[in-house]
This record gives sequence, structure tokens and C-alpha cells, in this order.
Amino acid sequence: MKKIINNKKNIVRQMVDGIIRTYPKELNNDIAWNIISKNNLEDTKVTLISGGGSGHEPAHIGFIGKGLLDVVVCGEVFTPPLSKDILKAIEETYNNNGTLLIIKNYERDIREFLEAEELAISKGLKVSHIIVNDDCSVDIESMRKRRRGVAGTIYVHKIIGAASEEGLNLQQLVELGNDVILSSNTLGFALNPNTIPGEFVKQFELNSDEISFGIGIHGEPGYRVEKLTSSEELANELVNKLKSVFRWKPEEQFAILINGLGGTPLLELFIFANDVYSLLELECVDVVYSQVAEYMTSNNMEGLSVTLLRLKDSKWLTWLNKPAYSFAWKNI
Amino acid sequence: MKKIINNKKNIVRQMVDGIIRTYPKELNNDIAWNIISKNNLEDTKVTLISGGGSGHEPAHIGFIGKGLLDVVVCGEVFTPPLSKDILKAIEETYNNNGTLLIIKNYERDIREFLEAEELAISKGLKVSHIIVNDDCSVDIESMRKRRRGVAGTIYVHKIIGAASEEGLNLQQLVELGNDVILSSNTLGFALNPNTIPGEFVKQFELNSDEISFGIGIHGEPGYRVEKLTSSEELANELVNKLKSVFRWKPEEQFAILINGLGGTPLLELFIFANDVYSLLELECVDVVYSQVAEYMTSNNMEGLSVTLLRLKDSKWLTWLNKPAYSFAWKNI
Repeated sequence: MKKIINNKKNIVRQMVDGIIRTYPKELNNDIAWNIISKNNLEDTKVTLISGGGSGHEPAHIGFIGKGLLDVVVCGEVFTPPLSKDILKAIEETYNNNGTLLIIKNYERDIREFLEAEELAISKGLKVSHIIVNDDCSVDIESMRKRRRGVAGTIYVHKIIGAASEEGLNLQQLVELGNDVILSSNTLGFALNPNTIPGEFVKQFELNSDEISFGIGIHGEPGYRVEKLTSSEELANELVNKLKSVFRWKPEEQFAILINGLGGTPLLELFIFANDVYSLLELECVDVVYSQVAEYMTSNNMEGLSVTLLRLKDSKWLTWLNKPAYSFAWKNI
Repeated sequence: MKKIINNKKNIVRQMVDGIIRTYPKELNNDIAWNIISKNNLEDTKVTLISGGGSGHEPAHIGFIGKGLLDVVVCGEVFTPPLSKDILKAIEETYNNNGTLLIIKNYERDIREFLEAEELAISKGLKVSHIIVNDDCSVDIESMRKRRRGVAGTIYVHKIIGAASEEGLNLQQLVELGNDVILSSNTLGFALNPNTIPGEFVKQFELNSDEISFGIGIHGEPGYRVEKLTSSEELANELVNKLKSVFRWKPEEQFAILINGLGGTPLLELFIFANDVYSLLELECVDVVYSQVAEYMTSNNMEGLSVTLLRLKDSKWLTWLNKPAYSFAWKNI
């Protein structure tokens, strides 16, 4: 497990420095080394702050920019940032429109972000939050959906980012965000585990002919291990599971994100995408917005996830399509 | 070596179908399955055609779009397309401004592309070409630079793409292209070999603590195998070699592309980038344009390359900065 790193102790800090030095005209971390902000913060809109553990690059720093996020607070690899840093980010980038925190549904993330929110509110600031929980994989012991925050977070960023620029206020953004989250479901599989830089340990084991369905973006175990057969079979499993979650009706419109987890080549992502589109066509599901990209990775994990977002409101599609400018978001 | 594929025989075709179905408003392959064209071809500019073997995704299909390429002809994995297909692409997308072929410097690529060019010219069409040969790694037997076409090709696409939209004619684009190519050098290393989908064979072997400098994007062997130490040491080797090739003077302006070869996480690419910037600063090299991305991969190879482009003309920087719209190019 070879890694291109230096001192293990400040992997994330060196990465952040590399990012800021690559995009100095667009990004800065003047507030603190792990608080990354766009250079042209507007005081005419709600400030959008996201963040979480590192190791999911390009999420979230890659989604800071015009039409997307304003600020990201990042923690060490797979470790959320501390509430004091989140509070500092809120205070230093605050304007009178208030601040929205976009949190992924993990216990420690929620604890740190909500502690910061509470402290900020106690200081008289207007702060609210949404919690993304798009993962619809099922825990085999409790039979409950895990509802972790995974790749669906990216389309939440995009829609909220575009809507915030159109002047939606804090409360409207919270309602919109919760509506988008309720309409999002994500399911994925892994072919090979990730290896955390600096730790050199595989997070789980899979035989050389096996895959794991429902894996988490931190290497959390999936709901079933199976022999790897073909892309078509993999697509079939995910589409069937998503169908049972959505219970879609013919002609409903969806956006899709086929998200590489870090170690799977685009060539394979597009082969898989092709199989997914064929299955969705058979279902008469109308996919009106599509991206295939590595947006929310698990470092170098081999595998992918499929996010479907039911487009309840035609504005959501407009907001997805609106050009945005960050180093990871793809406008075509 | 698990792969998300179906029938081994039409891997590339399935990928292309997946791409077209992901971006139906922007791309089509109506001429032939392996000739991918943008939907809005302008007849007011020189048509730009690139292509080559597949397995380097997002190159080249990911760079079709406004401000970049017009057409890509793709072959099977690591195999150039046939001259008859290239000829068909030239004929079907031709306008009176003529067509420029952008070729990477491999014997078989050149043979197929130039055969097509010759046939097109014999039919009275105006066609010319440039050959990208930015690889400055040295063959240890002949001690000659290999001059393969590698990641520098992407900035050639970008600059030629922007210039063609400003109305430069075919001859001017050839001169510009050759000038940019002469000003480009790329050098990389691999930590682990790629595995070709459908073949399941590693293209070379490296011990678990070794890296190979000067590796090619098809798995061609490098110029030296060494123990992997740190990102800083790796950066040092590449920057020193690039320095001896460029013999730069203080305050010269450069564009840089730190390009992931497919299997290296962004986290590591940015750590490495940080080390490269530090070394270039010590050299008083003025980096005025920078990207860190997976643009020209070798499927899932772990490793990266550094491309430096000496900006002889301030227009080159303007053309690099001009927004472009394809599914891989990143505007920030």
C-alpha cells in the first residue's frame, strides 16, 4: 500500500496547502489552516458551510465556488472537524442573511456541527442546518436503513448553492434542503477496500472474486457479499433496490449521479452507467440529468454508488443545470 | 483484478454508449460508434479532431466541447483507431476552414492518422496535423528522450481549442500547436501498474516498496526503479529533471498540470503538488496557471505526471483561462 505522502501527522494540512496553492485566486484558508473559504464571499446571500472528515476528495473542498459552497471546515482523514473550528468558520464568514450548515448524517459530525450552531446562536447569530442522509442501504442486524450521508450530498450542495444565489432565505433553504434530501437515495458497492493514508491498513477484506453491496464511504461493511459477475448484474441489484425504495411511477423525472469511490476507472463507471440507463429505460424512469464522476470518494476504494434524486420541482433541475465554478464540479 | 465490465469484446463500445447516454445534449456518435462529436459543430472554425487508443479516460472524449475539441475518434484499449474511421470523421465533420488532427507521438497512431490525412487531401480537403511529444523521460538504452505524447496533450487541446474559436486559420493553428508542444515537457512515475480491462494482466511488476520513474501511459517501462521514500523526494526528482530539460531562467512564466494516472487519490496528488510548488518557488519559477486532475490516465495506474509548459506568449495564458465546456475540463 504505497502512498505519496510525507509526515503522516499532517497529511490533511499538506493537502489543503496544495489545494490553496493550486487555486490561489479562488480559495484561501486565512481563517485557519482547515477552514477553506472562497475568495469572493458575497454578503448578499446565506453563507453555506459544509465539511466533515477528509479522505473523500474532491468532497468537500472541491465544491467551494460560485454557485456552490462558500466555506468548508475539514477534519483529519475520516474524522470530523471540531466544533470550535466550525464556530470560528461561522463567525468569520457571517453576514446578516445567516449561515446554513450542511452536515452528513454521522453521529460525530452532527455532534460537532450542532454544538457550533448552538454556540453561534447563543451569540446572537442566525444559523440553521440540514442533515443529508441519502444512504438507503440496510443494516442486516437491525434491518433498518442506515441513512448515512453519502454521494447525494453533492447534488444537495449544488441545488442549495444555486438557490442561495437566487436569494432564498435561511428558512427557505432549510425547507428546500430537507425536501431534496427526502427525495434522494444512494446505494453502492465496493470491489476493494480503501487504504487510509498514513495507516496502511485495509479497512475490510474481500476475496479476489467478491464484491460488497451497501458499503459505506468510510469502509463500513455492506449488507451482502457476493461473487462479482458482470456490470449488468451489479446494475440490476442497485436499480432493483432503488426501485423498491422509491416506488417510482412511470414518467417521474430523476437526476442521477454515478459516483466513483476513488479507485474505479472512468471506463468502468461509464460501462456501468450504460447498464443502469438501460434498466431505467425499461422502468420508464425519465432521467433528465446525469453525471458520472468521482465526487465523493472513499480515498482509493474500488467501487461506485448510484444516487437517484426524484425531481419533485422543475426548479431543482434548473438549479442543477446552472453553471457553477469550483475545481471539482463539472459543467458541460 | 476485479473489473466492472460485461462482454470483454466490446468494452470500449459500451463505455462510449454510457458516455453518450450521460451527455446526450452535448455529444453524439451518429457517424460511427467510435466517432464522438459535439452536437453543435460550428462551420465558422477549423474542426479539431483528436483521438487514439482508449483506456486513458477522461482523455480524449472528456475534452470534446465548446472551447476544446470538436471530434474524437477512439480505438480499442491502448490501440489507435483505424485510418478509415479517422477519414470518415474528417469527411463527415468537414467545413471550408479545414481540419486539424492532434496526434500523440506513437508510431501506430501517427501511421493511422497520417494515412487518413493523405487520403482526405487527395480528395481535395484541407487537413493538417500536429504531433504531441511532451514526454521528456529518457530511454536508458539509447539515452534518447522518448518523446511520447502524454498529459501535455491536454493543454495543447485547450490552447488550440480556444485559439480556433478566435478564428485562427489552419496554418496558424499548426504553428501555434507546434510552438506549444516545443514548450511542453512531462515526466511521471508509477507506484503500481495498470491492469487492462478484459486482460487481467499487470503490465509490469514493481515490488511493494518500489516506484518507477519515467513510466509511459501504456505501461511502458520507466528509466529507473527506486525505493519509495516521500512525496518530497519524488517531487525533487521530477523537478530536477524538468529543470535540466527546460534550463529555465528566473521569472519565466509556466503553466503546470499535475496529472493523476488513474489510481492515485486526489489527497496524494495535492500533497505532491504542494511539494512541487515549494521546489519551484525556490527556483524562482513563476507558476501562473495550475491544475491538479486526472486528465490523461493509464486506466487504474497508481502514479502521476508533472507537465510544465513555458508560457512564451501571454495569449497562451488567456487561452488556458478561457472557460471551456466538456465533461472533464475543470473551470474554476
